Amino acid sequence: MKQSKLFIKTKREAPKDEEAINARLLIRAGFIDKLMAGVYTFLPLGLRTLKKIENIIREEMNKAGGQEVLMPGLQPKENWVKTGRWDSMDDLYKIKDASGREFALGPTHEEVVFPLLKNVIFSYKDLPLYVYQIQNKFRMELRAKSGLLRGREFLMKDFYSFHTDEKDRDDYYDFMAKVYKNIFDILGIGDKTHYTLASGGTFSKYSHEFQTVTDAGEDTIHICCKCEMAINDDIIKENKSCPKCGESSFSPKKAIEVGNIFKLKEKFADDFGLKFKDKDGMEKTVITGCYGIGLGRLMGAVVESSYDEKGMIWPESIAPFQVHLIRLTTNDKRQTIFADKIYNALQKSGVEVLYDDREDIGAGEKFADADLIGIPWRAVVSERTGNKIEIKKRNEKKTRLVSEKEFIKTLK
Amino acid sequence: MKQSKLFIKTKREAPKDEEAINARLLIRAGFIDKLMAGVYTFLPLGLRTLKKIENIIREEMNKAGGQEVLMPGLQPKENWVKTGRWDSMDDLYKIKDASGREFALGPTHEEVVFPLLKNVIFSYKDLPLYVYQIQNKFRMELRAKSGLLRGREFLMKDFYSFHTDEKDRDDYYDFMAKVYKNIFDILGIGDKTHYTLASGGTFSKYSHEFQTVTDAGEDTIHICCKCEMAINDDIIKENKSCPKCGESSFSPKKAIEVGNIFKLKEKFADDFGLKFKDKDGMEKTVITGCYGIGLGRLMGAVVESSYDEKGMIWPESIAPFQVHLIRLTTNDKRQTIFADKIYNALQKSGVEVLYDDREDIGAGEKFADADLIGIPWRAVVSERTGNKIEIKKRNEKKTRLVSEKEFIKTLK
Repeated sequence: MKQSKLFIKTKREAPKDEEAINARLLIRAGFIDKLMAGVYTFLPLGLRTLKKIENIIREEMNKAGGQEVLMPGLQPKENWVKTGRWDSMDDLYKIKDASGREFALGPTHEEVVFPLLKNVIFSYKDLPLYVYQIQNKFRMELRAKSGLLRGREFLMKDFYSFHTDEKDRDDYYDFMAKVYKNIFDILGIGDKTHYTLASGGTFSKYSHEFQTVTDAGEDTIHICCKCEMAINDDIIKENKSCPKCGESSFSPKKAIEVGNIFKLKEKFADDFGLKFKDKDGMEKTVITGCYGIGLGRLMGAVVESSYDEKGMIWPESIAPFQVHLIRLTTNDKRQTIFADKIYNALQKSGVEVLYDDREDIGAGEKFADADLIGIPWRAVVSERTGNKIEIKKRNEKKTRLVSEKEFIKTLK
Repeated sequence: MKQSKLFIKTKREAPKDEEAINARLLIRAGFIDKLMAGVYTFLPLGLRTLKKIENIIREEMNKAGGQEVLMPGLQPKENWVKTGRWDSMDDLYKIKDASGREFALGPTHEEVVFPLLKNVIFSYKDLPLYVYQIQNKFRMELRAKSGLLRGREFLMKDFYSFHTDEKDRDDYYDFMAKVYKNIFDILGIGDKTHYTLASGGTFSKYSHEFQTVTDAGEDTIHICCKCEMAINDDIIKENKSCPKCGESSFSPKKAIEVGNIFKLKEKFADDFGLKFKDKDGMEKTVITGCYGIGLGRLMGAVVESSYDEKGMIWPESIAPFQVHLIRLTTNDKRQTIFADKIYNALQKSGVEVLYDDREDIGAGEKFADADLIGIPWRAVVSERTGNKIEIKKRNEKKTRLVSEKEFIKTLK
């Protein structure tokens, strides 16, 4: 894509009311725009990254046997009354229409997926079953102030698994933990992301969170000094000692919850009468699990985990483009033609390129923009590069001169 | 995909409270599930078709120069007060949070895109500019009863164009009408879809609707008996005669509005102060247009336009799969192995196949399911087909026996 055509320009300053680093950098670089606290528009660069995150997650969910659906945000009050969450969930947005009928605006989808599957699951032959969606959620946050980390509206992947028994569910739960680990590895935050013991709320004894350690984290996790297990704040306050090894000294760290997985006990299955006939003809309750990842939050967590004083540093897997090709302004028409040729050659090779073809903008500003946007490779064509290209990785200082062929080979 | 794994089964009967043919067929075939009136879950087959519609539209919008963004559903009340639509729009869902702050749940996005572009458009050099999204909308319908044709929640493509002058906008408007025509051609409803003169509401003198003629239509359009121009009900009630040729006899037809395009006059640009500096340094108001297509409604309109007594008949462009491969139950293991081989060969050739590998289900039920689901090609492997495949198009009666190679060649 030609940068001259991109309708959003970078900004020198972030909005004054925006404290979070992820939002400040993403807004300055033109990835997102703030409509109000906790509610953002994804702009072309940001949407490219968001779609890449979406596709990575979708691929892994499909590999895990998930069947994709798309459930509504607008949900009937009755389903929420049935689970007791119409009154108990503080952050539920409620809507009343002109006839007085009330709806919930879904922050999660147990109230939709359980009734749906009640019409589908009858026998042990129908199990196990895995259903997921990637869909917009709403949550009433009165004070949203962490950029993409805590939104009033946010894209989420929610996955639900249905099993004949606890053993099968527990095995799948452990499997899904590995799938999650793999996703965070692909996004370059695997090393910093801890599989963290968390309380199960009213649903089960324990659940697990995936917590990415960064200074921007709103959560605190506690790494056991003996067995290195990560434990969340709630559990520590209750237990005082490590549930795994009994140790009572911990190293606290600030972290962002990028995913969570839950064993649901029989809570929702009982609410909606989700039962099946076992091999011996006995009626039993379906055993379930649920598995969430917030896509925008994940994008924010990657930014918080990977930036420097100049801007963001994207991993190749979710960078909006692979190469930022910069043509420095010149009176030598041959260099302009050469840069255009490189742009076309890269695109033909299937490389995603943002091409800074803007006229009348100095080298300093172009380099500053490239550092801010944070595309993995910077490639410069100028009067000084002759028939070569000066390339450099975003996270390295050293540049080198290569031919077009060498560059394309490097990228493959 | 193996049909035995598909978690949704077809139904013999549609829900009793569902009158619309599109909803009855889509529910019976397992494409959608009704959560409540006007609110549906897209199930795996339905989501595949929806995503295909989405990708066709996205490709055409990108070709038309559109830059894709993703705007929020939750919108600040202040923006809606500024345009006067907080009070004037009857079907706007309003939300109040626990602090008393009010929000709109977006049925359209002028209130977001105009303020966004005010920070981007300064000079004639920034124009023209085209921005679009494919995003979930909400509209307060008290009596939703037409399946996907009129939803409380629905996926929509909304496109906004920004210009220096009316001539440029009008040229683009005419160009977009052709882009729309092309989309409806790709979806197989081009012949039945009329470019229809409509009133411009408070925004402009005229707008245009794309109206697909079917008995299920909630609108009535009037085809001029002389010049064949299509005119919507509002205009006819006002004018009594054809605005183009003056003729006053019309042929009325029921139709579904699958798209609409608007010239916006200066309404929203004035509300949000969207101005630019012209070449001569003069400050002028940006001239705009907007262009919508409802994706779910389009899917419903295709169903209403293409079905028979047995079920739906999808065009190849948006069918959930290209081929419905049916293996009839047999004691001859060689036929089972042969059918599996065909399935793998088709997939390797890049053909999307739904493989009815279900055991213990008779030929009659499998054929009925295939007709109901409406995939363009039916391919049967049974004891009688030997080392050939019996193929048939959904909209044809004649079957023929072909080899694996011939079949793959036919599909390309």
